[in-house]
Amino acid sequence: MLASAVTLRGMQAPDVWVPDNEDATASSMRNEGIVNIIEIVSEHGADFPGEIHPRMVWHRDDPGLRRQGLEHMIEVADPNKGAIRHIDGFVIPEVGDIDDWKKADECFTIVEDMYDLQEGSLSMSVIIESATAELALADLRNEIGKPSNNLERLFMLIDGEVDYTKDMRAMTPTGGLPPWPELRHNTSRGASANALIAVDGPFDDIRNLEGYRARMTENRAKGINGIWSLTPSQVHAANIAPLPPETGKWLLDLNNEEVTLDSRGEQEVYPRKTVSLRIKDDDAYVLITSGEEEVLKKSELQEKLEDATSYIPSMSDIVESMEEFESAKAAGKGAIAMTQSVTVVIDDVEIEISKDRMWDEATYQAAQTPIKLFQDVYRHRSDQHEELVEMYGQDVVKRATEVGD
Amino acid sequence: MLASAVTLRGMQAPDVWVPDNEDATASSMRNEGIVNIIEIVSEHGADFPGEIHPRMVWHRDDPGLRRQGLEHMIEVADPNKGAIRHIDGFVIPEVGDIDDWKKADECFTIVEDMYDLQEGSLSMSVIIESATAELALADLRNEIGKPSNNLERLFMLIDGEVDYTKDMRAMTPTGGLPPWPELRHNTSRGASANALIAVDGPFDDIRNLEGYRARMTENRAKGINGIWSLTPSQVHAANIAPLPPETGKWLLDLNNEEVTLDSRGEQEVYPRKTVSLRIKDDDAYVLITSGEEEVLKKSELQEKLEDATSYIPSMSDIVESMEEFESAKAAGKGAIAMTQSVTVVIDDVEIEISKDRMWDEATYQAAQTPIKLFQDVYRHRSDQHEELVEMYGQDVVKRATEVGD
Amino acid sequence: MLASAVTLRGMQAPDVWVPDNEDATASSMRNEGIVNIIEIVSEHGADFPGEIHPRMVWHRDDPGLRRQGLEHMIEVADPNKGAIRHIDGFVIPEVGDIDDWKKADECFTIVEDMYDLQEGSLSMSVIIESATAELALADLRNEIGKPSNNLERLFMLIDGEVDYTKDMRAMTPTGGLPPWPELRHNTSRGASANALIAVDGPFDDIRNLEGYRARMTENRAKGINGIWSLTPSQVHAANIAPLPPETGKWLLDLNNEEVTLDSRGEQEVYPRKTVSLRIKDDDAYVLITSGEEEVLKKSELQEKLEDATSYIPSMSDIVESMEEFESAKAAGKGAIAMTQSVTVVIDDVEIEISKDRMWDEATYQAAQTPIKLFQDVYRHRSDQHEELVEMYGQDVVKRATEVGD
Repeated sequence: MLASAVTLRGMQAPDVWVPDNEDATASSMRNEGIVNIIEIVSEHGADFPGEIHPRMVWHRDDPGLRRQGLEHMIEVADPNKGAIRHIDGFVIPEVGDIDDWKKADECFTIVEDMYDLQEGSLSMSVIIESATAELALADLRNEIGKPSNNLERLFMLIDGEVDYTKDMRAMTPTGGLPPWPELRHNTSRGASANALIAVDGPFDDIRNLEGYRARMTENRAKGINGIWSLTPSQVHAANIAPLPPETGKWLLDLNNEEVTLDSRGEQEVYPRKTVSLRIKDDDAYVLITSGEEEVLKKSELQEKLEDATSYIPSMSDIVESMEEFESAKAAGKGAIAMTQSVTVVIDDVEIEISKDRMWDEATYQAAQTPIKLFQDVYRHRSDQHEELVEMYGQDVVKRATEVGD
Repeated sequence: MLASAVTLRGMQAPDVWVPDNEDATASSMRNEGIVNIIEIVSEHGADFPGEIHPRMVWHRDDPGLRRQGLEHMIEVADPNKGAIRHIDGFVIPEVGDIDDWKKADECFTIVEDMYDLQEGSLSMSVIIESATAELALADLRNEIGKPSNNLERLFMLIDGEVDYTKDMRAMTPTGGLPPWPELRHNTSRGASANALIAVDGPFDDIRNLEGYRARMTENRAKGINGIWSLTPSQVHAANIAPLPPETGKWLLDLNNEEVTLDSRGEQEVYPRKTVSLRIKDDDAYVLITSGEEEVLKKSELQEKLEDATSYIPSMSDIVESMEEFESAKAAGKGAIAMTQSVTVVIDDVEIEISKDRMWDEATYQAAQTPIKLFQDVYRHRSDQHEELVEMYGQDVVKRATEVGD
Repeated sequence: MLASAVTLRGMQAPDVWVPDNEDATASSMRNEGIVNIIEIVSEHGADFPGEIHPRMVWHRDDPGLRRQGLEHMIEVADPNKGAIRHIDGFVIPEVGDIDDWKKADECFTIVEDMYDLQEGSLSMSVIIESATAELALADLRNEIGKPSNNLERLFMLIDGEVDYTKDMRAMTPTGGLPPWPELRHNTSRGASANALIAVDGPFDDIRNLEGYRARMTENRAKGINGIWSLTPSQVHAANIAPLPPETGKWLLDLNNEEVTLDSRGEQEVYPRKTVSLRIKDDDAYVLITSGEEEVLKKSELQEKLEDATSYIPSMSDIVESMEEFESAKAAGKGAIAMTQSVTVVIDDVEIEISKDRMWDEATYQAAQTPIKLFQDVYRHRSDQHEELVEMYGQDVVKRATEVGD
């Protein structure tokens, strides 16, 4: 598995590869696991396009496992073994209180000192899979930066919902994982407060890419922009997911069910039968939602549709709006209005609507979040450039890398 | 805009007016903005019915903006300029850690000392729009009251979801704001723990008053009883929203869809077609929900409807129940039962139901929350008395101001 | 009421009985209330099958009530009165900051010292019904274990949503309680981080057992495995709820509505009409969900149903899977695949599907949560053994008590 993972490239390769010597390795085989990781990484690590952060063993309640974690790091970091020059840091699972994080940090410092690596140069990522680790997220900001630790080496805060569920003694009838929205919020907040990266744990239902994408959408609305990937198709989905789409999409929600409209040239067609619409006479329409009829004048219907529609902008839309706002700002304007017109079609009845979008500094700043993420990935992952150009076209990619500075 | 805001009265005027010198003012115009605020407030502030708390510039990451915020407060507070006697405090945006809150507090203390104002007399409100400020909400209780600060001057904790979303690096497909339930909970909890007022941020979709009201209902269930208002119609909606309605309303929920019944005299009529009901024979009814038929005896149907209905009490209902409970308590009773009978009509079939409501000390205490809020506003806002009397009638208003002490 | 509660046995008796001298007793009658509790407990406590933790008066804001709480504990703990030997601890309501918890703890220590009881031997449970107590949940881990307190005596963390709602100044239109998901999360997390038991507050709608069960399912997904019970039927429901069912159940969710299938021998029949299915020709099916038709090949339909079904394992299923995994582990295997085949019937159309479930160490550990809870209760509640055997059969009960060590 390690051997095939290290050969991934482009959209199939993750930004961070975590060769695992914890859960994926039987506890009796972990010394052999380390040898295996060293061998693969030293041989192929130079060519891997993302960062490499092997996962060690560790446990807040088990000093023996902590000692083993230290020994393995000492082994992996040995410059004579050739792996460490390709390794960016280590992932430490099962941490507890902030004092336990400091113990792990101290192990990193010992390893760095041993091999004359710069203090803090090995980054540390932790898996939040206990109530105590979740509580530590709120302490971190007060501890990071103290002269007695090197917690500035922290890189990713990763939720581990399987073991967290066990630690919380939570149960669901089918054995499925609870959604844990508060944990994810607290991890995201901890990441934001300390300039780290929040990452969601594995999505076990490997075949269900739709569910995986829905989970990522939910995560991004919480500020969690990374997710564990277990398979190449999950990696691909996770690389694509935070990118704005190639083409914009209209959504319509008239009965608490958001439906994506079918784009047919200038028309956006409602593809279901749940809502229906017919012309009554010259200026009157009958709209039926959830079995309730409503008679509306044309202007009322338009207003209703304008309120009920929303638009998912494409990468090209975002870049264009940002450029337009930048010009306006340079010309001394604080806000610009952009109008979008579209013909919505329900049951063959066509209604033209137009929506105004105000762009001010706040809209502009908000739009920067996906663009900055794109630029950050673009800078570090030249192996993905070709696929991005294929997706968006050369022009949009170029402008997307330049906008917003 | 300032000039028109200061003339608002009654239900059109907010409890707190925040003349803005931050986001509403271009950064190059902020010195002029302050002059403008001073001019308007000194001239018209005496007649404004609510409190006045101008928003200054400030940023946890920018000492230059913090210095500018201090300079502006010094300018506004200058007694020779005539504004400060009408000003109750200042709103400080973009705070970070609790130590940053203390820096802002210290600026207030400097200003008070400069002009011989009583220490702590200028109230301070902060905008929670960063992960670090959200974390500070949990520290506040330990810091407030320390002799080295004057954080007791704190007044409102205001969520600022636009910048918070940016700080959390969160994204949604359409660019809409995430709901941030955990942030709102933490703000509300911080307010409750420190006897402050929790306020939700702006609701951008200005035309959508329905959505604004739904947001306020959600907020009140979290203990957030204030909200930013951007337009006179939002101010009006926000003033009305926390008040109990003029007339009670019955709700029916038979298929996970809560529907308000139409009141027609003694009858409460189900206005939709989603649920249907017909008489089968003497003592049997057929109830159809979500396409599933159910045959029920009359008593079973009554029990089902009693469980599926709920009642939104009017101001007059609440006052009456409180008065009744107060009398019972004075007579040594700990709990009273009140029965409500009503005829529910579905598809012309009439079913009489009766619901018991137990009132004990806890119910009584819970009912006090809206009444105390009403009384508090009533005491401070004589400009709204006339409109309140128009709404509820003189008798109910009078009893509502007296009940519950 | 006390007299009848103390006679409960088996599934009708709670694991913890809380004779109440706070809200259930008029404030003027609390000295008599204590005498009453002492009398009932000294006479019948020896035979009560669960633990006994009387609720005292206490309030973070009222030193008089705290003194009364101390006096009552001194009275109850008096060995000459005969109650204390049956009492396991006390429940303290209305606590505030962690320093307030320490005041209560100190009262326990005083009582223990007075009567030569072992320090820490009386357990303390607190009711989280204020914002400050919720904040204290995050401090607890740093305070417990300090030599200056005996907070290790803590036992249950109980949410009290009625008073919490009042403390948070929250309101709902009907006066119903807000759901407070964040409070429940924080209580559960505090319990997990400090090895305590999280308990949800009273469910007021006594007649609505369906709602009570739904609340418990929601709670268990948050790690809250206890709940207040107000009536014998609530006690019974609460005792049954966390136990795996006697027989497994299939769920189908094709239109965002999870429906339990009717088990008829080998067939699992969809009992509603919302989704419909018909055979089009040899290898094609028409599936209609939410009014939308979809034509699917047999293999596509099978895959869709495999994704849309889930299974609630019975106690016997769980025990069997655990045993199987234990054998596999003993034989050196880290994971085993188990296949379940079933015939799903929609509109008389039969489709055979088969689902693979992987069992690895993590699945095994997760399955232990309900089993350990069962074993814990089994060990302490011999009065329930007969009913458990009736439910599951002797064989399954025996294996369930032995599996997983």
